[in-house]
Amino acid sequence: MERIYDYDQLWRFTKDVFTSIGCSEDHAALAATGLLRADLRGIDSHGIARLTGYVRLWEAKRANSKPDIQIVHETLSTGVVDGDSGLGLVVAPFAMVLAIGKAKQVGTGWIAVRNSNHFGIAAQHAMKALEEDMIGIVMTNASALVAPTFSVERLLGTNPICVAIPAGIEPPFVADLATTTAANGKLEILQRKNQEAPTGWIQDKDGNISTNPHELKGGGALLPLGGDRDHGSHKGYALGAIVDIFSGVLSGANYGPWVPPFPAFIPVPENMPGKGIGHFFGAMRIDAFRKGDAFKKDMDQWLKRFREAKPAKGFEKVLVPGDPERNMETDRKKNGIPLMNAVVEDLNYLAERFKISAPRQ
Amino acid sequence: MERIYDYDQLWRFTKDVFTSIGCSEDHAALAATGLLRADLRGIDSHGIARLTGYVRLWEAKRANSKPDIQIVHETLSTGVVDGDSGLGLVVAPFAMVLAIGKAKQVGTGWIAVRNSNHFGIAAQHAMKALEEDMIGIVMTNASALVAPTFSVERLLGTNPICVAIPAGIEPPFVADLATTTAANGKLEILQRKNQEAPTGWIQDKDGNISTNPHELKGGGALLPLGGDRDHGSHKGYALGAIVDIFSGVLSGANYGPWVPPFPAFIPVPENMPGKGIGHFFGAMRIDAFRKGDAFKKDMDQWLKRFREAKPAKGFEKVLVPGDPERNMETDRKKNGIPLMNAVVEDLNYLAERFKISAPRQ
Repeated sequence: MERIYDYDQLWRFTKDVFTSIGCSEDHAALAATGLLRADLRGIDSHGIARLTGYVRLWEAKRANSKPDIQIVHETLSTGVVDGDSGLGLVVAPFAMVLAIGKAKQVGTGWIAVRNSNHFGIAAQHAMKALEEDMIGIVMTNASALVAPTFSVERLLGTNPICVAIPAGIEPPFVADLATTTAANGKLEILQRKNQEAPTGWIQDKDGNISTNPHELKGGGALLPLGGDRDHGSHKGYALGAIVDIFSGVLSGANYGPWVPPFPAFIPVPENMPGKGIGHFFGAMRIDAFRKGDAFKKDMDQWLKRFREAKPAKGFEKVLVPGDPERNMETDRKKNGIPLMNAVVEDLNYLAERFKISAPRQ
Repeated sequence: MERIYDYDQLWRFTKDVFTSIGCSEDHAALAATGLLRADLRGIDSHGIARLTGYVRLWEAKRANSKPDIQIVHETLSTGVVDGDSGLGLVVAPFAMVLAIGKAKQVGTGWIAVRNSNHFGIAAQHAMKALEEDMIGIVMTNASALVAPTFSVERLLGTNPICVAIPAGIEPPFVADLATTTAANGKLEILQRKNQEAPTGWIQDKDGNISTNPHELKGGGALLPLGGDRDHGSHKGYALGAIVDIFSGVLSGANYGPWVPPFPAFIPVPENMPGKGIGHFFGAMRIDAFRKGDAFKKDMDQWLKRFREAKPAKGFEKVLVPGDPERNMETDRKKNGIPLMNAVVEDLNYLAERFKISAPRQ
């Protein structure tokens, strides 16, 4: 069962929750816009469904609603930002603006972030670059749910990579992908429905391939993109590792099995080597490489050629990364955002908890 | 059947071939070292087995042995290089040195390259950055053999991504991966042995999943990492597309289905929008983010934790990207490089063709 809500209602409510935990008006608005971007784009697992999770992190004093975000080191094209345990939804825009500013000066900007928290969907941050005729690149590490190839232990998060590339008249290219075969949100859907997972998504606690979606809670692991060695899982593992090192090691955040978990009821790992979770942001000015017009003409031709490719039997059309999410965003802005009952109950709980009015349907 | 050759014999011979087609002494030495790095690291499909292919490209006037390599545009952190149809083995080192030089100045350097040819294995170029305490990033596009998710058409090359990351006392992290489930070289082995491929490697000319390794020659396609939509092929497709756009569109090279093929007997595509094939090179100075010592301490801890992870039943140990290739390099430097008879015959042909002495076993 689900109910449909207007975006504006959810935005007002989300902002009220963030001000209730002590965020400034500006930060609360930024965080609400960022969180709901996931719902608009159809990535429901990363949107308002996580709002209670952010509140619980704040209650556990693992998220700071009044962060003093600092640039701790920089060169002309790089910097490291300390998020002061702030919400990733607030820390990430700070870092992306910094990357874009450096790109304006010297062609590209690259910012590693430590001491942050979950930042919603990566695409919203990368897409900031599009407004400036830049390519945006965003990564983040996350707590360990993924077993490297041949490993029985979980050592990596689902560690997404996002790249947004501007175009001329064609809609842009926006790839935002977890470096696992399937994102955790997809597994949760199968858990709720008690359905089997395809092979290659998970392994059990002994490292055997499994199709039981509940294995993850029994000590099993998500698998890197590829699934097993024969299908290239060592490549998915390598990509997740690159994200972890860029986000965690380059910034001085935690990495590998030491990344603190999002659910506040799970204790943080012992002997954490760094601070909070880590992100990595990049911005590359198109005209630092080629004249913008020439690039856009070729990019349009690229996009058109792929969108018009002949589909295989049984498929309607070939998509470019970002197409499904953009269509969803258009639809949900107009027709509203469906929320599952469990999420509605969470929001009602928050409304009571903070004495604010619940979103109207 | 194979025969074992000393590295020095193969190097001298390869250099002689490159000087025979008109390369300068310096370029021939650089190209020989680059080409044979693939053989040393066990990537036999990209090594001396391709030497006749380079010669044929030169005979067809599609590779220029005396290129006038130019920087056609630059900012403090970026540049575009025109390779003048030179061998990628010569053009790529020029671009990587440029990227490293920019990183020395402003923290990072990013070079897009057009009008180049095949550059051997990406790892050799990325690993140049390690010597300077930098992270090296290398991509290249290639002629279209891969069908995007849902497509019956081949629109992307196997488009590899390589990232090399320095460490302290632990051996470094070097990931070098085609963005397909399986590299073309692995398929060629199955073709020779007439063995079935695992599902998820290829599709037939109508877009049906196939396990027949000969389908590729019958109009089928390699599949992006993931294999099919259920197993995340849209992610492999997105990664291959990113490589294509960074290498091809950002530089003004060809892209997508218009990338010219390596085999000189295959005609170049009609209406090519750019020049030659494209590469992309990045260098990031570690100390543009953190003090080198602090980074290396954490990086060593990362590498040690992953190398010592508990293996799943049936597997001996968990590997870090680059470990198998490094072990192979140590072994082959000492014990020699095995070449298949078909390759030996090719080398004998080249020895006659150019009146140079064949490598001694």
